[in-house]
Amino acid sequence: MTTDIFFQIVTPDEAMTRLFDLLPTDPQTERVGLHDALGRIIAAPIISPEDSPAFARSAMDGYAVRAADTYGASEGLPAFLTVDGEVPMGAAAERPLQPGTAQLIHTGGMLPPRADAVVMVEYTQPVDQTSVEVLRPAAPGQHVIQAGEDLAAGDELLPAGHQLRAQDLGALAALGITEIDAAVRPVVGVLSSGDEVVPASTQPAPGQVRDVNAITLSALARQAGAEVREFGVAPDVRAELERRTRQALNTCDLVVISAGSSVSTRDMTADVIGSLGQPGLLAHGIAVKPGKPTIVALVDGKPVFGLPGNPVSAMVVFGLVVAPTIRRLLGLKLNEEPPQRPARLTRSLASQSGRIDFVPAVLQRRHGEWWADPVLGPSNLIATLVRASGLIRIPLDAGGLAEGAWVDVETF
Amino acid sequence: MTTDIFFQIVTPDEAMTRLFDLLPTDPQTERVGLHDALGRIIAAPIISPEDSPAFARSAMDGYAVRAADTYGASEGLPAFLTVDGEVPMGAAAERPLQPGTAQLIHTGGMLPPRADAVVMVEYTQPVDQTSVEVLRPAAPGQHVIQAGEDLAAGDELLPAGHQLRAQDLGALAALGITEIDAAVRPVVGVLSSGDEVVPASTQPAPGQVRDVNAITLSALARQAGAEVREFGVAPDVRAELERRTRQALNTCDLVVISAGSSVSTRDMTADVIGSLGQPGLLAHGIAVKPGKPTIVALVDGKPVFGLPGNPVSAMVVFGLVVAPTIRRLLGLKLNEEPPQRPARLTRSLASQSGRIDFVPAVLQRRHGEWWADPVLGPSNLIATLVRASGLIRIPLDAGGLAEGAWVDVETF
Repeated sequence: MTTDIFFQIVTPDEAMTRLFDLLPTDPQTERVGLHDALGRIIAAPIISPEDSPAFARSAMDGYAVRAADTYGASEGLPAFLTVDGEVPMGAAAERPLQPGTAQLIHTGGMLPPRADAVVMVEYTQPVDQTSVEVLRPAAPGQHVIQAGEDLAAGDELLPAGHQLRAQDLGALAALGITEIDAAVRPVVGVLSSGDEVVPASTQPAPGQVRDVNAITLSALARQAGAEVREFGVAPDVRAELERRTRQALNTCDLVVISAGSSVSTRDMTADVIGSLGQPGLLAHGIAVKPGKPTIVALVDGKPVFGLPGNPVSAMVVFGLVVAPTIRRLLGLKLNEEPPQRPARLTRSLASQSGRIDFVPAVLQRRHGEWWADPVLGPSNLIATLVRASGLIRIPLDAGGLAEGAWVDVETF
Repeated sequence: MTTDIFFQIVTPDEAMTRLFDLLPTDPQTERVGLHDALGRIIAAPIISPEDSPAFARSAMDGYAVRAADTYGASEGLPAFLTVDGEVPMGAAAERPLQPGTAQLIHTGGMLPPRADAVVMVEYTQPVDQTSVEVLRPAAPGQHVIQAGEDLAAGDELLPAGHQLRAQDLGALAALGITEIDAAVRPVVGVLSSGDEVVPASTQPAPGQVRDVNAITLSALARQAGAEVREFGVAPDVRAELERRTRQALNTCDLVVISAGSSVSTRDMTADVIGSLGQPGLLAHGIAVKPGKPTIVALVDGKPVFGLPGNPVSAMVVFGLVVAPTIRRLLGLKLNEEPPQRPARLTRSLASQSGRIDFVPAVLQRRHGEWWADPVLGPSNLIATLVRASGLIRIPLDAGGLAEGAWVDVETF
């Protein structure tokens, strides 16, 4: 009797394709003020409504000039210009620039009409209060930021599905955009199961253990951009597991069940998930170690995942199937990759072809190079993940890796 | 006249050393519930108060046995054991294991007294309802997670200064730790200045521009672990800049002023900061491009930074001096590095020795390799940062980099 006969193993990609083909392509949206928009996903492209800057600005401290008035200027034969006042900051010049004159201007100041260049103060020499010598010629446009040069009206500033970073908020502020349409955060329901599992705040009786997965999976879901509701611990009783799963489905957009460790518990979980709605189970078993006994399902439009109870497996599988589904529901572009650091293996690792292996590892800097030191020992200990700085991913058909080989470590 | 004479240029490291030497080493702390603790910095080492697991557990579905009863077992000559019931999940076995018997056990089940190994169900064969054949010998401890094997009482689970990740919360939950002492988030006051700058929600008059830095710097401060208070835009009037800076100092732990672009504005900002308390200015000018006209100060125990008004400079300098100071106030270990991706340069970049250069770049994947394509054009455009996926850092004494050279890109 082997556990394999219970599974129709598929690759994670295949499981995700089956699920994503059935999900809507566009997220629900809501208006979000710019101050709450960091990290949110924009639901539609943002088109610049105006030119930024709205006027030609000086990029230097110096003099606004007509470039033609400086042609041929040199230290030996400077161009002589009359200083016709100073451009105030935050206001238009008092008058257009007259031929043969210069106006003192500060970085960020608005160019006077008919000025087309700025001479840096370093390349000028004051003659008296009202005149200045220019020691180098200025080309038209020199040290000038043209109207619309930063962001031009009608240009696409950001594409749909983009996650807003600090500087994106700055660019939106520059354009006077103080609200955006963001993807609504999906609500993830987190449910643990197992007769032996008790809430973290409880003193366990002999044979009982505290729930590790609920808080870990909740934190991972929040990091992926979701809101979380927790539904406690269901005992290994079919009716109770079904009742709690229904409750989660009623109020959430996606449900994650950490499904216990024994074969019988996992089979009961699959059975319950499969019975709750259409199309039901899409995959039962994926080609990943640790994490094989994973359940991927869609229940009347809502993704439901059964994750192995082992905390290491649960975390690996969350990153592999649940986080991408949250990102998909958010409309985030799918080419996003988890943060990775290339590093060299401190020891050889065996792997089985046809399966993706994840091995927790500590990153170490040695002589300026990054090395990944696998954390060995039983794979089902939470301490393994606490000690590790990331996961080494051994691809589907690698069949093992030699000491010194370069690997990608997905840091966490 | 050159701007250099206004500055005593120091390296960013030197500026940070001057500041950090004067800051307290321990953060203020507060109790935080585990559900709010993701990303928080723990203020004291966390010592495991108990063994986890608290009892020996099975790592497999199978039979709890005495290893000695299986010695020499093989397919040809199996060991015959009487099945003495099933270990219930979440409770102790009903009785100790008798010699010559086995008890059915599930993954995560508590080993009965006197059992010392688990035989996987795959290596057994049922004989009848009350007996089983064992086809392979079990070594003592096989497929058993010993009490305390994951986390042992008295062990340091996490060091002080550690930032809590999802799996760390899981480990704390396993130990029944539902509250931790976290570093209090420092409150960062953000103040913009400049006669030409108006709030983002305003329609600018000719010569005016909307404030880009306030929201960008606020977002970066939140990402670094701080809380933020905004103090609007101060005009280039000494008394008003001083009034607002004092106001920020009264209610915040750290103040960031984006100090305008012109030399006169920057000098006024330095003058105001230097006059507000002791020891005042620690550095005025750092060896970084963009970002040279940076002010680093300590005012009666509170760090104050004057950042260049140019948004690209402001973002570079925030990452270089403000974010490390926030992390320092949080007690975060200082060996943390910003997320980096090694990539190859798509074109040669000039740099000046004795200065750190930051060049915004787009990361591109070509034939499985990462390339960093510098974003050229005026360095003071916010669009530059929007297009970029990170900053190439050219070290202090590199003196330029050739096309194809490997660089570290600090992603954002």
